[in-house]
Amino acid sequence: MPTYIDITVPLTTDMLTWSTHEQFEAVTRETVHNDRRTRVTNLRLGTHTGTHVDSPFHFDVGDQTADQLSLDVLMGPARVIDLRGIVAITAENLAAADIAGADRVILKTDGSQWIRTGPFPKVPPHLTEGAAAVLIQQGIRLLGIDTLSVDHPESGAVHLALLNAGVIILETIDLSAVEPGDYHLTCLPLRLPYDGAPARAVLRTL
Amino acid sequence: MPTYIDITVPLTTDMLTWSTHEQFEAVTRETVHNDRRTRVTNLRLGTHTGTHVDSPFHFDVGDQTADQLSLDVLMGPARVIDLRGIVAITAENLAAADIAGADRVILKTDGSQWIRTGPFPKVPPHLTEGAAAVLIQQGIRLLGIDTLSVDHPESGAVHLALLNAGVIILETIDLSAVEPGDYHLTCLPLRLPYDGAPARAVLRTL
Repeated sequence: MPTYIDITVPLTTDMLTWSTHEQFEAVTRETVHNDRRTRVTNLRLGTHTGTHVDSPFHFDVGDQTADQLSLDVLMGPARVIDLRGIVAITAENLAAADIAGADRVILKTDGSQWIRTGPFPKVPPHLTEGAAAVLIQQGIRLLGIDTLSVDHPESGAVHLALLNAGVIILETIDLSAVEPGDYHLTCLPLRLPYDGAPARAVLRTL
Repeated sequence: MPTYIDITVPLTTDMLTWSTHEQFEAVTRETVHNDRRTRVTNLRLGTHTGTHVDSPFHFDVGDQTADQLSLDVLMGPARVIDLRGIVAITAENLAAADIAGADRVILKTDGSQWIRTGPFPKVPPHLTEGAAAVLIQQGIRLLGIDTLSVDHPESGAVHLALLNAGVIILETIDLSAVEPGDYHLTCLPLRLPYDGAPARAVLRTL
């Protein structure tokens, strides 16, 4: 039996959300259906709420929407590297980590400490443009990070570079329970023809 | 490279929704973020909108919510059987199909013809209580169907029996492109601590 580690941030009303995005809401209605109590819940959330993927359409880099992202890229071997203690992740930081040959790279930063319910630091861990260039040059297909954004809060340059290069961005994952190393990633976003999509993401030990 | 068949119904504003449930809505906002156009979409949907799983809490059978459903059951070998042309699926219909030994059974009915955008037939394909009993006796762990519900519209008996037996119910899948046979199912619902959850579901050819 494989061992799965769920790296998805649970969707709860006290979850951390990007301040300019809609807050997650859930309202459960109880009804009696053929003499039996049933429950159905109405949800409000954004395409970038909780664990989610970004598609190129999010940054106006072509028109590829989340439902068009490759299932072959969303599922496959992934390497988790340890970048805890670093705020601005540079090309040098990546060179010091072992990412050679990896198609999917997942960055474990200090973000996993606050990714579920905050508080959100003023400057959370993020990639520099130089770091993005290294990943693109290597030809990675997917980048995951345990923060709300791959970019510095006042930049969009890393999103732009990665999406332009066709790299799928997976944000807001919780790596607290994950040791650095090699895994099999299964990441399935909802089938949404929009700029991004909430997703479930799990790692399987090899 | 594995071949995936996406059996998820796309989340679109013209999709078929259970008449008493909230209609799917999506509103995209464009903003300028550091001189770059970005898009974020606000979503409204229900826990049973589109392709989704039911958890026992949906029918008040204990308190297990969708986020607690076993990943080991949601992913694994699955058998798709052909029940097209049948409205009330009986124990005899299942006996005539080859489901022996299957842990996950997926029913291809006439539902795939209208599951995306309707119209919803008065009495869509559904299981009888006898059919549910056969599946439970076999010890299946997951049942998938290409209609909005495993039950007749005026009954909840099949839901109740399956959920009581710990069978995960996967509803509103599109099997148009799927031939009967054996596959590997990957079904990942959003991590929602509620009665059910929208999901992405794909079959991989073996």
